[in-house]
Amino acid sequence: MIARTREECAALDAADPLAGFRKEFVLPEGEIYLDGNSLGALPARTPELVRRTVEQEWGQGLIRSWNAAGWTELPYTLGDRIAPLLGAGPGEVVVCDSTSVNLFKVLTAALRLRPGRRTVLGERDSFPTDLYIAEGVTGLFEGGRSVLLPSVADLDEYLDESVAAVVLSQVDYRTGVLLDMAEITARVHRAGALMIWDLCHSVGALPIELAACDVDFAVGCTYKYLNGGPCAPAFLYAAPRHHAAAEQPLTGWFGHAEPFAFQPGYRPTEGIGRFLTSFPPLLALAGLRATLEIWERVDLAAVRAKSLAMTGLFIQQTDGLELVTPRQEAARGSQVAIRHADGFAVVQALIERGVIGDFRTPDLMRFGFTPLYLSYTEVWDAARALREVLESGEWRAERFSRRGMVT
Amino acid sequence: MIARTREECAALDAADPLAGFRKEFVLPEGEIYLDGNSLGALPARTPELVRRTVEQEWGQGLIRSWNAAGWTELPYTLGDRIAPLLGAGPGEVVVCDSTSVNLFKVLTAALRLRPGRRTVLGERDSFPTDLYIAEGVTGLFEGGRSVLLPSVADLDEYLDESVAAVVLSQVDYRTGVLLDMAEITARVHRAGALMIWDLCHSVGALPIELAACDVDFAVGCTYKYLNGGPCAPAFLYAAPRHHAAAEQPLTGWFGHAEPFAFQPGYRPTEGIGRFLTSFPPLLALAGLRATLEIWERVDLAAVRAKSLAMTGLFIQQTDGLELVTPRQEAARGSQVAIRHADGFAVVQALIERGVIGDFRTPDLMRFGFTPLYLSYTEVWDAARALREVLESGEWRAERFSRRGMVT
Repeated sequence: MIARTREECAALDAADPLAGFRKEFVLPEGEIYLDGNSLGALPARTPELVRRTVEQEWGQGLIRSWNAAGWTELPYTLGDRIAPLLGAGPGEVVVCDSTSVNLFKVLTAALRLRPGRRTVLGERDSFPTDLYIAEGVTGLFEGGRSVLLPSVADLDEYLDESVAAVVLSQVDYRTGVLLDMAEITARVHRAGALMIWDLCHSVGALPIELAACDVDFAVGCTYKYLNGGPCAPAFLYAAPRHHAAAEQPLTGWFGHAEPFAFQPGYRPTEGIGRFLTSFPPLLALAGLRATLEIWERVDLAAVRAKSLAMTGLFIQQTDGLELVTPRQEAARGSQVAIRHADGFAVVQALIERGVIGDFRTPDLMRFGFTPLYLSYTEVWDAARALREVLESGEWRAERFSRRGMVT
Repeated sequence: MIARTREECAALDAADPLAGFRKEFVLPEGEIYLDGNSLGALPARTPELVRRTVEQEWGQGLIRSWNAAGWTELPYTLGDRIAPLLGAGPGEVVVCDSTSVNLFKVLTAALRLRPGRRTVLGERDSFPTDLYIAEGVTGLFEGGRSVLLPSVADLDEYLDESVAAVVLSQVDYRTGVLLDMAEITARVHRAGALMIWDLCHSVGALPIELAACDVDFAVGCTYKYLNGGPCAPAFLYAAPRHHAAAEQPLTGWFGHAEPFAFQPGYRPTEGIGRFLTSFPPLLALAGLRATLEIWERVDLAAVRAKSLAMTGLFIQQTDGLELVTPRQEAARGSQVAIRHADGFAVVQALIERGVIGDFRTPDLMRFGFTPLYLSYTEVWDAARALREVLESGEWRAERFSRRGMVT
């Protein structure tokens, strides 16, 4: 049931099982933040944990903190704490590097696991870095090529015997389209290829079932719905069946079987650790440690239910605009995109009113809905603000024009 | 002139042009920290700048900070601020990823710049991650191989026409041996190969002249002598003559000519930016921003003079032990290594006395000397503590044994 009045929204807020999480985040006064799908909000506990990492672990513990503060284990222990959010088990996820670098690793490993196949399929409208990395990887293999699907609907047509791996985003960064992970993964496997999922726009927004869907590899970031901090270290998942044979080329010392033996001759460690290269920045990991203390208490089914209720409410309350995001719940992530020829100016006018969304070229207004720190009344107010901006024409003011702005 | 008494050390401290920097660092009370060559100390200004980044830029600015706080420019602006420490110019250095990942990029680019040559030379005793990465890169090229020099003295013997690139550390992480960058680079160039320097153990410890030495590429970390924070993002230097032709394979969106155009099809940006992949964690960059405010005021010639005086003093005051580091100043970095069969226990006993050095398997005690926050009297006291630990035999106590310790 979608609320029809602001009072009904208030009633939903009062009954919201996730409402208690709002106080665990710090947000600017008087603003409605609909950009947590791009950069998640600051958890209230983060400043103190970062301070402790800086002043105690680094400042006082210094080099001893490698052992005393458990630094050496963090890529593994943080990975294990992310695993339940992915439908993965312990020892299947590590935290390291960036999404792009991690995609480079698993994609190269995938090509090596499928000798004789040299094509990587991506989707034309994917977040571009995935496509660029696919180009970078295939450029290293004789006959390697990166092929772009016009759309996921064309997958079967392109899935021939040359395809080593398919890389797709579970949720599209612009449109919010949610793909069917189980069905697509099975289809790719039937064609003899490996399936790699980019989870940047789905992790923390909905339950993910990597193991149940038989996914080969996955990568994703921790600074959107997970609130790990701007550009916090990313994660990498590899199905256990690939651990022994996977060979990734960024063979740094933290992926070595004995990193502190300081021996020449690379020998990968057993298990997921072979996907490590070097150690992630500790100050950035502190942000991730802080937010994962919240996520341990979060019920992802409740997150998904509230996410769908919020996006449904926003869609209903902006009826008449050119909706790009699917109305069908099963095909929708946690964001809503609306097409408008002057979307840039409209988003600027909304920001001036304290409603923070963003704009993606050429004409998409994008609004993200984060169940942990947004209320139904905020969604209601944001939709009303959008209608008012459009009806009043205030977005036509010169100060909202694109001139001089970096988008 | 090397001090002969503790009083002479105090006199040197009183006359030390760098003495004023000591108060810009926070160090544990009652300890002498000789491990700044592994993890640099905490600058006093860092906690506040990190706090501001967390609470203001992230917490309040949120997504707006990409422009308002200048986030998008940081890989370039921080690189430009590191450049003078390397003898490099603006637009020649970027801050990104880790040393290992950056080495992967420049090494792959180097192999592509030398088609037909498929050997990478490293030194057997280099920090192992450099050798592992060389294996990882050469494994991607048909006929590629990573060859280890028994020692740099054997370089000429190995420099044949198959060699595409040579990777060496300017200062050896264990022995502290400083190589002649100009001479070796010229030798490598005469053989038609490219020269890549790992500056992890030299940057901030001595003046470096990448441009004057005609170096092709260099990489290094920012968390040792530079004090950027544990595992802070690394840097990458590429000589301007290679900017147009260099092709590195980690082609993420931040290396694209128009990262915010979100277009398929990778097109590298002009200049040093093509070595970027994704964006470094902002909390970690805050640590780097803080410490570079110090480095702008540092005279590297004074750093080198004090470094040599301190290592000279320590060598003189530990005379009779098995010194591994060269006595000759021109061949010495800013650390001193002493061989001892029970080095592990000796270092533990020293740590109990508040003198923090470290141990590198199998038998090296390693002491780093950081001119910005160490005094001559501390060096004097540390050498005396080492003599006393050895003379008293206190290191033989059971609690200093290796059992159960992670080294």
